[in-house]
Amino acid sequence: MKDIQKQQDDRNITVDEVGVSGIRYPINVKDRLHGLQKTVSDITMSVELLPEFKGTHMSRFLEILNEVRGEITMANIPLILNEMREKLESPKSFMEMKFPYFIEKESPVSKAKSMFSIDVMFSGYSSEKYGNSFILGLKVPVTTLCPCSKEISEYGAHNQRSYVTLFISSETFLWLEELVKIIEESSSSAIYPLLKRPDEKYVTEKAYENPSFAEDLVRNVTLKLSSLKGINWFRVKTLHLESIHTHNAFAVVTKSFDVSDALSRHIKMISEM
Amino acid sequence: MKDIQKQQDDRNITVDEVGVSGIRYPINVKDRLHGLQKTVSDITMSVELLPEFKGTHMSRFLEILNEVRGEITMANIPLILNEMREKLESPKSFMEMKFPYFIEKESPVSKAKSMFSIDVMFSGYSSEKYGNSFILGLKVPVTTLCPCSKEISEYGAHNQRSYVTLFISSETFLWLEELVKIIEESSSSAIYPLLKRPDEKYVTEKAYENPSFAEDLVRNVTLKLSSLKGINWFRVKTLHLESIHTHNAFAVVTKSFDVSDALSRHIKMISEM
Amino acid sequence: MKDIQKQQDDRNITVDEVGVSGIRYPINVKDRLHGLQKTVSDITMSVELLPEFKGTHMSRFLEILNEVRGEITMANIPLILNEMREKLESPKSFMEMKFPYFIEKESPVSKAKSMFSIDVMFSGYSSEKYGNSFILGLKVPVTTLCPCSKEISEYGAHNQRSYVTLFISSETFLWLEELVKIIEESSSSAIYPLLKRPDEKYVTEKAYENPSFAEDLVRNVTLKLSSLKGINWFRVKTLHLESIHTHNAFAVVTKSFDVSDALSRHIKMISEM
Amino acid sequence: MKDIQKQQDDRNITVDEVGVSGIRYPINVKDRLHGLQKTVSDITMSVELLPEFKGTHMSRFLEILNEVRGEITMANIPLILNEMREKLESPKSFMEMKFPYFIEKESPVSKAKSMFSIDVMFSGYSSEKYGNSFILGLKVPVTTLCPCSKEISEYGAHNQRSYVTLFISSETFLWLEELVKIIEESSSSAIYPLLKRPDEKYVTEKAYENPSFAEDLVRNVTLKLSSLKGINWFRVKTLHLESIHTHNAFAVVTKSFDVSDALSRHIKMISEM
Repeated sequence: MKDIQKQQDDRNITVDEVGVSGIRYPINVKDRLHGLQKTVSDITMSVELLPEFKGTHMSRFLEILNEVRGEITMANIPLILNEMREKLESPKSFMEMKFPYFIEKESPVSKAKSMFSIDVMFSGYSSEKYGNSFILGLKVPVTTLCPCSKEISEYGAHNQRSYVTLFISSETFLWLEELVKIIEESSSSAIYPLLKRPDEKYVTEKAYENPSFAEDLVRNVTLKLSSLKGINWFRVKTLHLESIHTHNAFAVVTKSFDVSDALSRHIKMISEM
Repeated sequence: MKDIQKQQDDRNITVDEVGVSGIRYPINVKDRLHGLQKTVSDITMSVELLPEFKGTHMSRFLEILNEVRGEITMANIPLILNEMREKLESPKSFMEMKFPYFIEKESPVSKAKSMFSIDVMFSGYSSEKYGNSFILGLKVPVTTLCPCSKEISEYGAHNQRSYVTLFISSETFLWLEELVKIIEESSSSAIYPLLKRPDEKYVTEKAYENPSFAEDLVRNVTLKLSSLKGINWFRVKTLHLESIHTHNAFAVVTKSFDVSDALSRHIKMISEM
Repeated sequence: MKDIQKQQDDRNITVDEVGVSGIRYPINVKDRLHGLQKTVSDITMSVELLPEFKGTHMSRFLEILNEVRGEITMANIPLILNEMREKLESPKSFMEMKFPYFIEKESPVSKAKSMFSIDVMFSGYSSEKYGNSFILGLKVPVTTLCPCSKEISEYGAHNQRSYVTLFISSETFLWLEELVKIIEESSSSAIYPLLKRPDEKYVTEKAYENPSFAEDLVRNVTLKLSSLKGINWFRVKTLHLESIHTHNAFAVVTKSFDVSDALSRHIKMISEM
Repeated sequence: MKDIQKQQDDRNITVDEVGVSGIRYPINVKDRLHGLQKTVSDITMSVELLPEFKGTHMSRFLEILNEVRGEITMANIPLILNEMREKLESPKSFMEMKFPYFIEKESPVSKAKSMFSIDVMFSGYSSEKYGNSFILGLKVPVTTLCPCSKEISEYGAHNQRSYVTLFISSETFLWLEELVKIIEESSSSAIYPLLKRPDEKYVTEKAYENPSFAEDLVRNVTLKLSSLKGINWFRVKTLHLESIHTHNAFAVVTKSFDVSDALSRHIKMISEM
């Protein structure tokens, strides 16, 4: 059969990214407590297409995925990116995996256990010329209580569920559990799937004692992350589902410390969470 | 050209609904203050297909829509449904329109004005045998403050944005503004796009003074609606984006007063909001 | 601490459903080949609240979930529903779980293997008075090719990805894999994550040889299901992402054979997929 | 009342963006045929927060929006951005509006008219130091037919609905209608809400005559845009809802011609469509 994709293209245009998205795939992720956690990922894979080729061979992305059979860890993503570059004859490859990740949580007073889920993203980039890059993303729900509402009201204060998204590139390995802790300690209170009455009292009062604007939350995360070693770059965003408004409030801080050519290209390619 | 759809079908199966969905269309809606409000609707249209036909002529749905040119009101939906039955040679037709509807709101203290948007659904059903039916749907954001959290905590109480969805069939015309008021007065407090500081103090304290479980909210709406005349049927649901949990809380009440054959068939066809 | 929820309510209104939704939870599902498949579910749990109580104890839903620890199969759902009724002192309980389910597929010619994912729903209902009911839901992507476009065009025919959703209640155990096969054989062609060129030729030609309107697809599924024994009720819907239109086409058939009181109540409570 | 937001902050951290999102608002957009088109927008507004302030005054975003009362055009966005900077005492402001925009289309043969809707984004950025920038975004559905499937199959070829997203910054005014035409002519065929049978034949055959990979589509758009004068920068992406796969295919080309400091900062802030 004719290989249309292999044909010469005469438009002389590099296609920066060509690939597949929306692939749902079962994967195994490294877990602090249990070694491996089985979950389900939404996967994007792409390569750069050189000007001389008419098309890329999309089925090869799936073949590569099938070879690793879901054993996808931070450690083997560079190998997958290399194989993508080889099999698809490209100088650059990119991969993004988004999945729910579960952490066993104890409620603060009664110590009732429950499964807390966050959204996680593993994103990798590989370039023949610029080298490799890895970005970790996570999205954590917390509660925030408005400092202004508390100050001006005789009783009560509006509070709401907020989602904090952190994208981070680091020289050293970061446990998801550590980053979740940094985010939770920067908010009015951590939240939980299961709270008995004494726990609910504790969380309510803790949030009231720790009011936090969107601005406070991203500044708190920034302070805590700035004291860690080996961070190349991060972006933190918080989105508050305002309980007294129909719209949301948000705040963003981005910090660059040591951004390689690969990382600077990679940052432009990651998608929203 | 051959009319494939008109061909005889020998499987002897009535198709209960066949039609088009996801049509985005500019429409005019009757407005209490300004006469007409221009907005954008997501439209579904379908008919029953008799066993003898292979297919329906889907382009005719769009032709009918183009004829009315977006002048779609509660009043002309029966005409549209009739035309659907005639042009598509069917004993039953169904239509559903979902759109944002804007209400000018004044904040409670400073009287600052702003545009408050709710989701509205107009749904119509027409049957040769059973007659016509109309269901109005609306989804309104409010704030709710937890009675349990308030009772057991020394200060503060968790609260959150909640969405109250009401589907209702009535003999008499109902203003959207009236139904919004019923829903807001059943919650801890109405919410607003624009609140100055004295307004924020007012809303915070009002919510604290009016704690409401999901159960309370739907019971309050039920009580208020039960005192109205001409209501045939309603279903009210509230969904609370719990500020101390990763999941939501919800409650539902359905009440039937005078349900015709057409309405009872219609209820099964409406989609979620 | 005061138990606000246990307080007497004087509005005399039964709340038909009160519960929690949007719980993300890791579960194990029975798998034809491997025994158990680990996946991630979105869970809804609710009970009826009697008029005499002010509220339900929402944290108990999570406690029950934690006790079974994700070992949720069609077989133990009745036990979970019973426990919900007991622990929440309610005559009726309801549960709905939606999750991706993976099936290993072979491509039609090259026999390349890949992981095909479908959406699955397990829904259970339990009533002291009416008994128990179970509804299985699944959503399967297929390809459909338009018979009219094929007939009137000299070459080519528009085709598109379509999603077929089936809700079914049966006396006998049904393998998900069997139902997927029925749906795929009712469409123009099954689709696959991984297709090599000979496979792509096969699928393209097969779809061209098997044109199918939305109406045809639901009728084909209806015929195939009607020949199975023990089916109490089903509803099949197909949604076509029309490649030549901005909107979608859809068709629905519902069939009732032996609908118990419990099932008839349960059908009204299941949510869309 | 105390102005908490105005308090001194001692963390010495600039918050890059702080603002509101998810504001639904009725707006008027300039229309080639009718002068003004009324539609509904989803709005995001933010400013940079200097390190010395604890918080920004979020209600002022809504006040500014209420002053312009929905008369938001490409022309007055710089004025709105200026007012945001002044009223919120910030060196940088950002705004993003997303809305459906309707174009009257004639079907290719029968000349039947219908309303075709696309997604549009207006995004503006203003910096005291770097100046102003405007980015236009649009998302247009088209049909694409696979060149490989056509070549290797004896009859038929898989095709699907695809969404082409274009972000563009230009020195000269660009009509949305012109950009839609460029995108449609780069695909296998334009698509339409209303097609009679002769139109359906035309579109089916035209798509078969113009097969286009994702790679072809973005290269075609790139060629056409490169011949326009005054383009500073663009990014074009196509997403194909593959009819023979469960996942999507995509391709992206980005081109920079004359990127100012303001534009380069602005590009990093725009959100996905």
